[in-house]
Formats: sequence, C-alpha cells, structure tokens
Amino acid sequence: MYLPLVLAAAVAVNAPAPRQASESTRGLMPVPARVSWGEGRLRLDSLFGVTIHGRAGDTRLDRAVARFRTRLGARTGFGSREGGPGLSVESAAPGEAIQSPAEDERYTLEVTAAGARLEAPTTVGVLRGLETILQLVEADSSGWYLPATRIEDAPRFPWRGLLIDVGRHFEPAEVIKRQLDGMAAVKLNVLHWHLSEDQGFRVESKRYPLLHGKGSDGQFYTQAQIREIVAYARDRGIRVVPEFDIPGHSSAWFVGYPQYASAPGPYRIERRFGVFDPAFDPTREVVYTFLDGFVAEMAGLFPDRYWHIGGDEVAPKQWRENRRIRSFMKTKGFPDNEALQAYFNRRMSAILTKHGKRMVGWDEILHPGLPTTTVVQSWRGQESLLEGARKGFSGILSAGYYLDHMRTSEQHYLIDPLPEGHPFTTEQAARVLGGEACMWHEHVTEASIDSRIWPRMAAIAERFWSPREVRDVADMYRRLNIMRIRLEELGLNHESHTPRMARLLASGQNVDQLVSFLGLVEPVSFGERVSRQKLTSLTPLVFAVDAARPDPPAHWATREMAMKALAGDAEARARLREAFTVWPTLSPALDALAFGAPLVRDTRPAARVLIQVSAIGLEALDQLGRGPASAEWIRMRSATLDSLAKPQGLLRISVIPAVKLLVRGAGGPVP
Amino acid sequence: MYLPLVLAAAVAVNAPAPRQASESTRGLMPVPARVSWGEGRLRLDSLFGVTIHGRAGDTRLDRAVARFRTRLGARTGFGSREGGPGLSVESAAPGEAIQSPAEDERYTLEVTAAGARLEAPTTVGVLRGLETILQLVEADSSGWYLPATRIEDAPRFPWRGLLIDVGRHFEPAEVIKRQLDGMAAVKLNVLHWHLSEDQGFRVESKRYPLLHGKGSDGQFYTQAQIREIVAYARDRGIRVVPEFDIPGHSSAWFVGYPQYASAPGPYRIERRFGVFDPAFDPTREVVYTFLDGFVAEMAGLFPDRYWHIGGDEVAPKQWRENRRIRSFMKTKGFPDNEALQAYFNRRMSAILTKHGKRMVGWDEILHPGLPTTTVVQSWRGQESLLEGARKGFSGILSAGYYLDHMRTSEQHYLIDPLPEGHPFTTEQAARVLGGEACMWHEHVTEASIDSRIWPRMAAIAERFWSPREVRDVADMYRRLNIMRIRLEELGLNHESHTPRMARLLASGQNVDQLVSFLGLVEPVSFGERVSRQKLTSLTPLVFAVDAARPDPPAHWATREMAMKALAGDAEARARLREAFTVWPTLSPALDALAFGAPLVRDTRPAARVLIQVSAIGLEALDQLGRGPASAEWIRMRSATLDSLAKPQGLLRISVIPAVKLLVRGAGGPVP
Repeated sequence: MYLPLVLAAAVAVNAPAPRQASESTRGLMPVPARVSWGEGRLRLDSLFGVTIHGRAGDTRLDRAVARFRTRLGARTGFGSREGGPGLSVESAAPGEAIQSPAEDERYTLEVTAAGARLEAPTTVGVLRGLETILQLVEADSSGWYLPATRIEDAPRFPWRGLLIDVGRHFEPAEVIKRQLDGMAAVKLNVLHWHLSEDQGFRVESKRYPLLHGKGSDGQFYTQAQIREIVAYARDRGIRVVPEFDIPGHSSAWFVGYPQYASAPGPYRIERRFGVFDPAFDPTREVVYTFLDGFVAEMAGLFPDRYWHIGGDEVAPKQWRENRRIRSFMKTKGFPDNEALQAYFNRRMSAILTKHGKRMVGWDEILHPGLPTTTVVQSWRGQESLLEGARKGFSGILSAGYYLDHMRTSEQHYLIDPLPEGHPFTTEQAARVLGGEACMWHEHVTEASIDSRIWPRMAAIAERFWSPREVRDVADMYRRLNIMRIRLEELGLNHESHTPRMARLLASGQNVDQLVSFLGLVEPVSFGERVSRQKLTSLTPLVFAVDAARPDPPAHWATREMAMKALAGDAEARARLREAFTVWPTLSPALDALAFGAPLVRDTRPAARVLIQVSAIGLEALDQLGRGPASAEWIRMRSATLDSLAKPQGLLRISVIPAVKLLVRGAGGPVP
Repeated sequence: MYLPLVLAAAVAVNAPAPRQASESTRGLMPVPARVSWGEGRLRLDSLFGVTIHGRAGDTRLDRAVARFRTRLGARTGFGSREGGPGLSVESAAPGEAIQSPAEDERYTLEVTAAGARLEAPTTVGVLRGLETILQLVEADSSGWYLPATRIEDAPRFPWRGLLIDVGRHFEPAEVIKRQLDGMAAVKLNVLHWHLSEDQGFRVESKRYPLLHGKGSDGQFYTQAQIREIVAYARDRGIRVVPEFDIPGHSSAWFVGYPQYASAPGPYRIERRFGVFDPAFDPTREVVYTFLDGFVAEMAGLFPDRYWHIGGDEVAPKQWRENRRIRSFMKTKGFPDNEALQAYFNRRMSAILTKHGKRMVGWDEILHPGLPTTTVVQSWRGQESLLEGARKGFSGILSAGYYLDHMRTSEQHYLIDPLPEGHPFTTEQAARVLGGEACMWHEHVTEASIDSRIWPRMAAIAERFWSPREVRDVADMYRRLNIMRIRLEELGLNHESHTPRMARLLASGQNVDQLVSFLGLVEPVSFGERVSRQKLTSLTPLVFAVDAARPDPPAHWATREMAMKALAGDAEARARLREAFTVWPTLSPALDALAFGAPLVRDTRPAARVLIQVSAIGLEALDQLGRGPASAEWIRMRSATLDSLAKPQGLLRISVIPAVKLLVRGAGGPVP
C-alpha cells in the first residue's frame, strides 16, 4: 500500500509555468497567419454571451457554437449565455455541401475589452476561429479573460491530414471520434481512413457481406457508424477520405471472395505483419465488375470527392506465378508488374471517375497513363512529391510524418512540404496540396493510439497550417506543453496513458519509480521493434515499450535545462545534478519491482544505461565548473553517449541529447 | 514546462508492496465461501491452454472463455492456447434462459501444479470462477503462476446490484459497458438502470416517440443500444432491471405527453435537482392505457422478470390541487395521497403482471393491497427492509450503500443486510434478497462516474457475496488496493481521474502539488454539496470537488501508518513526521497555482486546514516520544480535529482520522 504524501519540491524540478502572455504566440497552435495584440482584456464570466448573426438555419454552425459554449464552460466552470453581449459569430455562407480542398477556411477574429467578433466567409472558417478563441482563454487574479487581439487567419495548405490505419488493429468508433475532436482543435481537415489491410476489412458491405463477415474477426464499422463518423467529421470541418488498399495488402478481401485474387486460395486473415502475396487479379473483368459494385456501394457512405486506392507494396509472386496473368501481360505488351499495376490503376481510375471520385494513391502509382486528376501521396520521400508535381499530379507529403517512427515533435515539425529554397516552380508548388501524418497500426491499439498521435500531431498540424517562417522549436515546445493538456479536455488519454499502463505493468505495486523511468525513455521505432520482437496482430501489446511514449516531455525539458546550465544558470545546474544523482537509483528500484511483475523486466537494459548516462552528465557538470574540457574528453564522452543512444531492448533513453549538449558545451561557449 | 525527474524515495512514503501470497485471502475479492491453499504453483506461459469440456454450442461460454484468454494475455503479455493442457472449464448447463435471482452461481476451482479445473452447474457459475482465476494470477522470479488451491464458492445473496442513474446526467453506452465489466469482475449480478427522471427520459420509444424525442435533450439510448447492453450484461451473468420512476420524478415524460400529468402543463425538462410537482394522474384510465402500452413496448427490450416502478418522493401538490383527483379520492374513500398512490401501484402491479413482470419499488410503495410478489427496495433505512419482510415482501437493501454520500469503503463494507444478531426470523431473512449500491447522478457525469463507483463498489460487492464473517477491514483495504488496479484493466478510469482533472484545473501548469493535495481530501457528501453550491443539470462539473475522489488511498494508508507508529515503528513515525512537514507547503503552492487557474481557488480553505492538521500530527508524534499525554491535551486536540474534519468549502480532509488515532494513542496503549 502506498501513502501519497507529496513530491519533494527539492527534487521534482519544475521549469516556470508557461507564461502565455509574455510570448507573441501565447497558447496558439497552430500559429495564425497574422496576429496583432491589443491593449485590454475581455472578461469572461457567467454573463458572457455568444450570439450568432446571419446564417440562421445553418445547423452545423448552431452545433459548433453549442460545442464551443460547452467547452468554454468546462474550462471555466460557468456556462455562457445564448445571445447577449460577449462574442458575436458571423458566417457568410454555410460552405461547400461536400467539403473539398477548395473550401474557404479563413476567418477574422477581433477581441477588445468590450467584446469579440468572429467573422468568416464560411462556417468552416468559423469552426477554425472558435478553436482559436478557446486557445486564447487565459486567467489572472481577477479571473478568466481573452486578451485584446486582431487575428486574420488562413491555412497555408488546403490538405492537412491524419491517416489512421484500422486494418492492422481495429479502432472502435468512439476512438475515431475523439481523434476527430483533437484534429479539429489543431485545424486539421482530412481524416485518411485506412479501412482495409491484410489483417482486416473494416467496413460493413451489404452488397458483398463476406468482406466484413469473413475478413474482420467481427471488428468492423457498421454502415450506420460510418455515416455517424462522416457526419461527426463534417461537423468539425474534416473530410473523410477512405482508403481501400488494392491490388496488394488485400488478404482480408479474399477470405470471403477468393475468386478475385490472382491465386486460387483459400485465404485467411493474415496475423503476421509485412508485405504478403495476395493481390487482385488485374486481368479479369469480373474483378472490375466487383470493384465497380463495391465503389458504387461505398460512394453512398463516403461523400468525399477523393478515394484512396492504396496501391503500395504489391508483392510480385502471385502475378509472376499465374500463367494466365503472364500471358495477358504478353498480349498487352506489359514488360513488368509495374506496367500491369499501371493498367489496373487506369481501370480503377475510370471506375472512380464514373462514380464521381478522384483517385488518390501512394507514390507507387506514379505510372504513365494516369489522368492528372490523380493525387499522389508521397511516403517514400520528398522526391516523389517533386516528380509527381513535374508530371502534373497534385501531391500530399507523408514522408517524414510517420508517427510510428517514434521521432520527436521537433523532427516532424522541421520537415516542410515546400521548404525554403525548394526546387518546385510556382506552378508545381501549387500542386503540393499539403501533408498527412500516418498512424500505422502494427504496434498500436485502442489503448495506445492517443499516446502515439498526441501531442506530436499538433506540431505537424502547425507545419501544415501556419506560415513557413513559424519554426521556432523552443516556442513550439512551449505551446505544445499547453496544447497537450488542452487536448485532454477532449477525452484524449495521451497524458494518462503511461501512468495507467505502469500500474498494470507493476501488478498493483507502487509505480512512482516506474512512472519516472518511463518518462525518461521512448519506444524504439517501428523498424527497430520489428527486428527485435516477434509480433502478430494477436499479440497483446502490454509491454514497457507500449507504456512509454514518443518524445516524452522530459526530452525537451531536459534539453532546455541543459541550455540554461550552459548559459551559466546555477539553479539549472543544481537541478540537473540532482537528476543525475536520482536517475541511477531507478535501476535497482525497477529490479525490485520486477520480482513480482515480470513485464517490468523489459525496463532493465535501459535503466542500467541510464546509470552511465547520469555519470557522464555529472562529469559534464563538473567540467562546466572547471572551465573548458579537452577536445579529446568531449570526443570520448560524445562517442559513448552515441552508443548509449542506441536501442536498449525496445526502449531508448530520451534525455541523451540533453546530456550530449552539456558535454559539447563543456568545451567552451554554447554552440 | 516540467522536468519529471523522479520522486524522492525519501519523501514518497511507500508501504511495502502487497504480499499477496502471505495472506489467506491473497488477491481475492470478493473472498470465496471456502478456500484452501495447497502446495505448488501452476506455471503460466505461452504454452498454457484453455479447454472447454461439454456444453458445446453454449456460445456464451465460448465468448466468456475468449474474454478470459484475452484478459490473461493482457496481464501476462502472452496469449494462451485454445485447448491443450492448462485450464479445463466445464459447465453442466447453460443456465436460465432469462437469468433470475434463482440462478445457480456456484463453482468449484481446483488448481494443482499439474493443471487447473473449473466446474460449475451453469455457465454463470463458470463466469464467476473465471474472474476468481484472474484474481489468483501472481508472479515470482520465475514468472507467472496460479497458486495451488481448492475453492468452493457460492454467493451469500442472490441479488447483488448497482443502480446507475442516467436520468439526472446521461451516461453513454460505452460507459455503461465498462461498469458492467467492473461489476462482473467483483461478481455483481444486477444492473439497476434508473432510466427516467425529471431531468431526462433516456430510452428510445417507437410507440411514444415524444418521450425521448422531447424529454432527453437528444441524450438517450437507441433500442439497438439497449439490446446491445442487455446482451452484454447477460454475457457477464448480469441482469438488467429497468427503472422508470412513476408517478413522481416524471417531469421528462410530460414534456412530450402533458396529458398524462395531474396538471395541465406545458412541461419542460427540469434543470434543477430535488423533488418536483409533476406526477402522473392516477385517476384516469388513459394513463393506464398509456403505461400499459409503454410496458408492452419496453418488455420487448428488457427481458428481466423484474421491473422497477420507482414510486419514491411523490410531491403532493398536483394531486392536492386537482379538483377531479380530489373528488376521485372522495369517491374511492382514499383518506390521503398515500392511499391514492397505493391505488396507482396496484394498477401498475396488474399491468406488470399481465406482461410477465414482478414489480419492484422504493420503500414508499409499502402499502396494503400489493401482492407479495412485489420487491421492496429499502433506501430510507434498514427498518423498512424488516417491515417489508414481516409483511411477506422480498426486499433489497440500499440504505447505507449510497455512493453519493461519499463515505469510505469501510463504512459501506460494515453495513450488512443481515447483520449478526439481526431481528429477522429465518423465514423473513430468506426474503432479504441482497443489496444494491446506488450511484445517483446529481453530481456525477461521464467524466467522474468511474471514480465515484470504483473501487468502493468492490468492497460492497464483497459484502453481498462473501460470508458474513468476512469483515476484516485492514485485509479488505489490502485487497482493494490490488483490485483497484485490476479494475483499470477493464478500461475504468477511477485511477486516472484525479491527475487528469488536476491537469485541466491547473490550465497546463505543473500539477504535482495539486495532485498530492487532491489525494489527501475527499468530496463532501451529496447533501453537504447541495447546501453549499447552487447547481443545475447544466452546470459543468469541473470543480476541485469533482477532481477529488471519495475514500482516497491516503485515508487508509495514513491510518495504517499511524497504527504502526503507535505500535512503536520508528520508520512509520519518521515518515509521518515527513508528511506533516510537507503537507503545510501545499497551501502556498496552491495559492501560487491559483493565480492563473481560477478553479484551483476552491482548494484554499482545505489546504489551510491541512496546515493545522499537520501541526497537531507533529505535536502527537512529539508526545509519543515523551510518554503518555494528558487527558486534557487529548481532549483538546481531538476536539480541534473534529472541528477541522468538517467540510472546508466542498472538500473534507481525509487524513484526519489517522491524526486523531495518533492523538488518542499519545495518551497510552493503542486502543
């Protein structure tokens, strides 16, 4: 049993609370296109009213304002009034009946001590502005207020998306809904819903009921749920682009319908992860008839004008070994499988056009003969985005935004679809529609998804919305630390995740040390985990690596502390010294815990390495006190840290960059 | 920004980890009727198999075993095999088609080093036994195992329930489902679903669509959801008893159907809480025709043989002021409203009988003329349970189990429906079917429900299941500390609740001190809050009191530490001294936090009182070092503590009983 007295103020090092008002970007994320701050504060109290002007009967606007008022109430503890002085909201038009990348998302917000006024050409613009207002709410000793400001805002890119793969592991409808809430909060506008995979087909089909009936283990969305989620997304100004990956990644289709594959079958739901042989047979007309019927049915569920066919990673085996397919290729003069896939894609493109859809596909589909209405999603690198744009295709960048690579917010944030000095012409640059972060689901479940997407997604969302020049990493992390708590208001559990899993890992024992430890490490990347742990889609994901989170707050906080220490801040030095003294005690504590909690054992290699990292940190602090260290000392310690930065089991120490900064800084002036 | 280094081992006082194996009750909750421990351990590893014997085709059994295997996998990190050596499960019969209080819930479990065998007369018994197995899972340095044991188990009472009021605040379907998972884990078998109230009517009616259409603010369960939840409950051996409260507490019915009320209307959904005037008109036949049609429709949704009519707190006004009703009463010779309500209840009883239902009602319905098939639920005191039993009615005890009274697990635990030396005859005692805890929802929402029900419900569940003699409070708390983590495995968020709400309250500032403080206090009771804070059903429940939890772990942990200190344990004394030194620092810390976080201000009165409590604690520790204190000193300090134990705003200090124990103990030998 555990007696939670209180953290020792002396040891839990707290950087000062975020001083929102002292920064020009305050708590805003993404940073608006143009902001100017005024004098004065608009007080928020129980008399604060919200009035909608014009657009009576736009029920989406009404619902948005109702949600805004509920969220404001949850923040402040008092409701707002319907009507009366306070905030005036005006939407000039309801926006597109089916939202497209051309939707106008601009808004203007003016706050003075006397009142606030939000105006937008469309209700979607109002949605964006309401989120900005919620980010402006601050408090002082007199209570809640909005600072006086004038904001004119518009997105940099029209396509700002998040891919969620529900094929490899299913995500219940309510999990998708709370991601949509989070997305809306950071002004994203596309949910790219990866709905079929070798491991599962996730949508109810009334026309081909064996798709979900045999291909989903019973884990699929009913058509009613799909409609509900699409409507939920639209209410938040978010498009839903479905992806049904073909011709590869398609084992789950063939469990019920083996006749459309390129080899006889039978097929089973795939439990392993990787690239598998099953592929649609592009040579038979029945396949296109089937897919035409499928698109016809699904087009009734997914109103978006875009439809993602996947098209990635088609294994060559089934096509190569099928005599009829080989002979078809010969007849058509197709030199290789790529040409055959290009043929398949052209056929699919025609089917989609017939149903009013524009085709989107992964960059493998970049073959000649496709109409330039096709959108190419670049996952293999920024080069394919450029190549597509040169050929006249619109493109979306995903390379660099793979959330399962477990990179830091900073790393994702600094990747720009159109960086300064990019090689695109003006015309080509206009074809870069934006970007999408990808949440692939080999190692993600309902339990961990929030902690994998958030808060990093907020940093990426800023890259897609804000001007290119907004790229101050320290300020991004400052605001991310505000945003990650605000995102919890929406029911996202990224902050609760690690302590909760720690309690489960520790089987009811005290978890303070385990939680502290897990706050200092991060999961290895997708690729590193694949090479170290044998997993199937049935393996329970309940390991220490699943409890850790990518880019834990300690990563940046320790780096910031190290920068202060190098700048001569005595308190920062003292706190780091304390940290480097306490961290080594975690290893024996975790050893003790692991006796009755076998799953804690996975923490041991990293906990031991933390001892070494701490020792180098202490040495570096000593050096700082003594004057410049020798180049040799710096080289040696840096090399050691580099080797300690490698994966330790399935974990990686996240505070090594901070210690490395100290070591390098011990050589002289801060870089 | 916050740098989470590590808790100071010196200050975060940890009692030793629960040593499950050293106690005869291990981690079992509720304690089985008969347990004997053997020698040896049955190892659990990836080769462990689960085999179902007999009852092929009982899909409820199949699903139960599948869930068991998933949960075992989530605990251990490896899946179990389907079939093969390991656990053998045998159910002799599927159990009642519609579960009743007569359902056989017995099971026998035998574990040896060679294997485990679970046998039960019904699948419901198997369900109970599978939960026991999951509570037996332990670990040592060689990994996971089940200890050798023989358990013969059966419930003490056949009716073990939890009432959830979704009328005053709605709870989404998934929230109800996770309560059902928690209930199954502690062997409860009745969800008493309070589905209508003045503040909302929560079920879709196709026959009378204005019920949910006008009476719910859109917050209701569709019939599909009701069916899904009833099936979900049945899968877990839990009956669902619907309550539609009539003739009072019925404003929401009359928003759509004012013609059935005793005054003309119109009616609105009630936003205040309390007892309100609207009541069904018992004098008109159309009312019974309507209710008959309603029961007919709902009987198709709720298969249970019992139907709860509420019947509590009927306000006299509408009946008194309606001339026609007064004249009806005169004609019938009814002397008062009670007699009129008795008439209404007899009519309802007949309607329910016609639809195959037995009537349940609150103890107000105890009037002459009701068939003794009626079940009386005692909420006003144990006396009404006895009165009912004397008159031949079966009864359920709820007095003493009101979760919104914010009492401790201990207080609820020690209330027994049939305590030793009770005044019931054997025949009368047999009419006591069991008990139900009540989760009324004036001050409870989707966000806080788990923290209000769990883990206290587990202690109450033990009272309903285990032999009367199981009442060792210290052992109960020891096991509750294991159980509260296990309950998290089911998705319940009672443990995450306080830190999560603290983060929101603190608006992104560091929350360590706030979380520590909230761990030392508890919410005031329902009645105390009502008298101190003006609330409606629309008020956001986002206050410090909503972040605190009833009976926080610190309550018992500090008491235990105090008992050790009194017994001479030097370490316990040192740790308490540390606690009493750190607690006073919370007040200024919270003051600082509150500057930018207005909702934190509510913590101030209690934080200041904590300073005084700590000072008395330190004095008591000093006294312990000096030998017996004077009776006068003890009297004075105890009186001060009693006054400090009163509500401070909406909070109450939960560690005062521990300090009082120290003060009393300072006078001499431990009581």
